Amino acid sequence: MKILIIGAGGMIGAKLAQRLSTQTRINSQDLDSLKLVDVVQPKSPATPSDSGLTIDCEIADLTRKGVAESLVSDQPAIIFHLAAVVSGEAEADFDKGYLINLDGTRFLLEAIRAEHEKNGYTPKVIFASSIAVYGAPFPETIPDEFHLTPQTSYGTQKAICELLIADYNRRGILQGMGLRLPTICIRPGLPNKAASGFFSNILREPLNGKPATLPVSDNVKHWFASPRTAINFLMHATTLSKDAIGLRCNLNLPGLCASVAEQITALEKAAGSEALKLIHREDDETIQSIVSGWPEAFDAQRALQLGFQSETSFDEIIKVYLEDELQP
Amino acid sequence: MKILIIGAGGMIGAKLAQRLSTQTRINSQDLDSLKLVDVVQPKSPATPSDSGLTIDCEIADLTRKGVAESLVSDQPAIIFHLAAVVSGEAEADFDKGYLINLDGTRFLLEAIRAEHEKNGYTPKVIFASSIAVYGAPFPETIPDEFHLTPQTSYGTQKAICELLIADYNRRGILQGMGLRLPTICIRPGLPNKAASGFFSNILREPLNGKPATLPVSDNVKHWFASPRTAINFLMHATTLSKDAIGLRCNLNLPGLCASVAEQITALEKAAGSEALKLIHREDDETIQSIVSGWPEAFDAQRALQLGFQSETSFDEIIKVYLEDELQP
Repeated sequence: MKILIIGAGGMIGAKLAQRLSTQTRINSQDLDSLKLVDVVQPKSPATPSDSGLTIDCEIADLTRKGVAESLVSDQPAIIFHLAAVVSGEAEADFDKGYLINLDGTRFLLEAIRAEHEKNGYTPKVIFASSIAVYGAPFPETIPDEFHLTPQTSYGTQKAICELLIADYNRRGILQGMGLRLPTICIRPGLPNKAASGFFSNILREPLNGKPATLPVSDNVKHWFASPRTAINFLMHATTLSKDAIGLRCNLNLPGLCASVAEQITALEKAAGSEALKLIHREDDETIQSIVSGWPEAFDAQRALQLGFQSETSFDEIIKVYLEDELQP
Repeated sequence: MKILIIGAGGMIGAKLAQRLSTQTRINSQDLDSLKLVDVVQPKSPATPSDSGLTIDCEIADLTRKGVAESLVSDQPAIIFHLAAVVSGEAEADFDKGYLINLDGTRFLLEAIRAEHEKNGYTPKVIFASSIAVYGAPFPETIPDEFHLTPQTSYGTQKAICELLIADYNRRGILQGMGLRLPTICIRPGLPNKAASGFFSNILREPLNGKPATLPVSDNVKHWFASPRTAINFLMHATTLSKDAIGLRCNLNLPGLCASVAEQITALEKAAGSEALKLIHREDDETIQSIVSGWPEAFDAQRALQLGFQSETSFDEIIKVYLEDELQP
């Protein structure tokens, strides 16, 4: 079995590749090859030396002519589509956001359709969507059947891709799922351009003895999952049958609802009160305004019924970071 | 003030053009010119001889290069975008449906954005959406905040266009609205390829002494408005301010929830029991299956608050047909 990860150079993509490289079987089939592509050269995960797994790492830009066709030509059984311009960048650059986040996905789906029509190819396509498909005002807890009224171009593009995937899924061209990932926290590494970056910064930086800026008030609440949980979500999605998922193949995932104050309390528990002094409060109206349009909590009933699981406290989320990122 | 109707050759487009041709002012501005375009030559409505209104009728295919740019180059203040491939055809012809219903709309929005960036052009764009953006299962009455899970490509395309219009609206490129029109009944003229055609056929044909086929059972319920009400909706949308509409600019409209049995009862009241004998029952599983995925009733609170109004009985809907279509 072949697996393709598009957007394998990103944080989630790299962690997913790492996790997959430790597997020998997926859905009772041997995992033979893993292709990792991104617009910048993705790194190959370290594989066990006795692994029979072939790993290809390639530069590929889905928006260039023929690239999507080439990627599906060797018929990967599972395609993880994680490639996207993040929210802040998609808001700042209208053309780039629509080109990569919408057209790129459409090129991929159309390449799959061409291959499907030629010889019945029907891959699993697992798409990283986002809770940015929602826009305020919200009920305190958002039910599975709440409408999508995104208030960013990024959220709009994700919502459109979800609709496309559902239609291609319904027509039997592919077995699609869109996973509305909670905000990933704690993101390792350097800050990216996402407006949600500070949720990670205010924990990661102090945990590493560095200062961080908090641009919103302590009572801002949001919806979180750790990177490890995000990978669990993606892996779990591969195990679900088309029948179990049904036509409504875009899902809210379980997560942890927490306030910035709760994040800070968990940081103090993990790193002591000195760590808190590294957080500098500096209100940023633009970020405050974007974040105020974001959801705080979901009642993710369908995903829970389908077996998706998440953290239940910020202590756990910090523990995951310490285990996965700071241990040698 | 200039007004552009794209899709002016269709039933709703022609009736809208007729209605507009009787107006001298729209939103306290003089109505100077009306441009009617469609992929087939649209007919000019009869105008009062003393009218100063200029009416241009043109063939224009939004999916051809440069056409959208040309249509917005003289900066119509209001654009009605009604052009679409209907549901049955969009389901049968994947490429044509996406090309016309999705790409066509996107070309229009992009042409508006180019004009907006050049000189601040910010037209009202009133988009004919559809209740086909919804997909079963539903609550008995669908609230304004229910999610969109279309089960046709047509519904998917309409839902995507709604998301695009909302994003362009939010960015201030245009003042957009998507109106989720109820199923229009009684459609005059000849049947089209829409799967919903029979809802009109079983009334129109017997009212004209002709036979009609009923492909579903009598207890099928659905959501209706007359053509006259549809035009009222489109006209009313032009009067609403951006502030009144807000960011959630795609609306469920009020309508009449009625069963096929109620339609038939109203037909009997209007045309006598002889008319009922003209309805031939012939179950069609394909149509039954499509229709079973359609909504039955809405609680269209926001639209009602914004002043949209509809019929409240099928007797009224038949009366509109008799007045607007069968009177000399």
